[in-house]
Amino acid sequence: MTHYPDAILKLISSFSTLPGIGRKTAERLALHLLHAPDHEASALAADIIELKRSVRICATCFSLSDQEICRICADPSRDPGVICVVENPADLAAIEKSRSFTGCYHVLGGALSPIDGIGPDDIRLKELFNRADPRKVREIIIATRTNVEGEATAAYIHERLKSRGVTLTRIASGVPMGGDLQYVDPLTLQKAMEKRYDV
Amino acid sequence: MTHYPDAILKLISSFSTLPGIGRKTAERLALHLLHAPDHEASALAADIIELKRSVRICATCFSLSDQEICRICADPSRDPGVICVVENPADLAAIEKSRSFTGCYHVLGGALSPIDGIGPDDIRLKELFNRADPRKVREIIIATRTNVEGEATAAYIHERLKSRGVTLTRIASGVPMGGDLQYVDPLTLQKAMEKRYDV
Ligand SMILES: [Zn+2]
Ligand SMILES: [Zn+2]
Repeated sequence: MTHYPDAILKLISSFSTLPGIGRKTAERLALHLLHAPDHEASALAADIIELKRSVRICATCFSLSDQEICRICADPSRDPGVICVVENPADLAAIEKSRSFTGCYHVLGGALSPIDGIGPDDIRLKELFNRADPRKVREIIIATRTNVEGEATAAYIHERLKSRGVTLTRIASGVPMGGDLQYVDPLTLQKAMEKRYDV
Repeated sequence: MTHYPDAILKLISSFSTLPGIGRKTAERLALHLLHAPDHEASALAADIIELKRSVRICATCFSLSDQEICRICADPSRDPGVICVVENPADLAAIEKSRSFTGCYHVLGGALSPIDGIGPDDIRLKELFNRADPRKVREIIIATRTNVEGEATAAYIHERLKSRGVTLTRIASGVPMGGDLQYVDPLTLQKAMEKRYDV
């Protein structure tokens, strides 16, 4: 593709590093931007910069936020007495889309995976255990994924919190085994949330 | 998706405006960039800005360039006596990839399409006719697409140049009917170039 000017080749390379974007798609995107109005391309560039500048992690639940405390934790209509534990922000987003949950969250930032060298200190488990105060929290819903790592993480949390006096529940396995929550349709997630059981 | 911070929502919207990028993919890309190293995200933003700033149109062939004259037109090893007429830069790129052509190009910037209101003055036909000087050009290869608009454009060029004293050829229809050149594999394009015929 040396017949393209350098600036196009560079943008094609940059797009190619994104997940799921092959060389062909990257080329198509670069040529699209080239012909798009200037303001459209500069808006995209500005949005990327702004993303990295303004997004941070909620001090309470560790989900994504543009403030010290995220919108969900700061929302007085959300019940802080029920905490739903998820692996990452995309899983949180999937549950929010299902409109099946009105409590608050705890984002672990991953799951236990000895094979990848991810142990209890590498995800936000200590922070979860600190939040599991029975005077403030009635129930902790464990919504880690249904694959090996997610189940191991759920078992670990159960083991550590079972005598704490907080009800522990696991999201029902209406969600497909091994599946990422973010690809599950809202109805299935609603069902899974409804059928959660004690562990 | 109101649970995401604004900066993420804005970037998801911007990515969604790109061709072939749905809401789901846009979300995945935004979250990827959020977790990517700062320098990776700022490189992507900078590449988009640089693209719009530095890329222009070659004054001779109207393909993409970062100079007044593009690399191909400026390359002394390319034969300026043979001009291959293509609809757009992506089609030019596909032919270059096939390594079947050592002449120069003319990029029309589209094809005739009465239905879309695109007439002869809306694409660079006048510029092509100006270049078709038999003292400088021996052959013009018409490599517009094989769909209705591409064939109509080829016929129009033939009609206007047939008595000019320049050999007119049409790229062989080894390329699938109705297909975009950019999706044709290099071997098929090589064949089509080899089998071009007089019109
Ligand atoms: Zn929060
Ligand atoms: Zn040129």
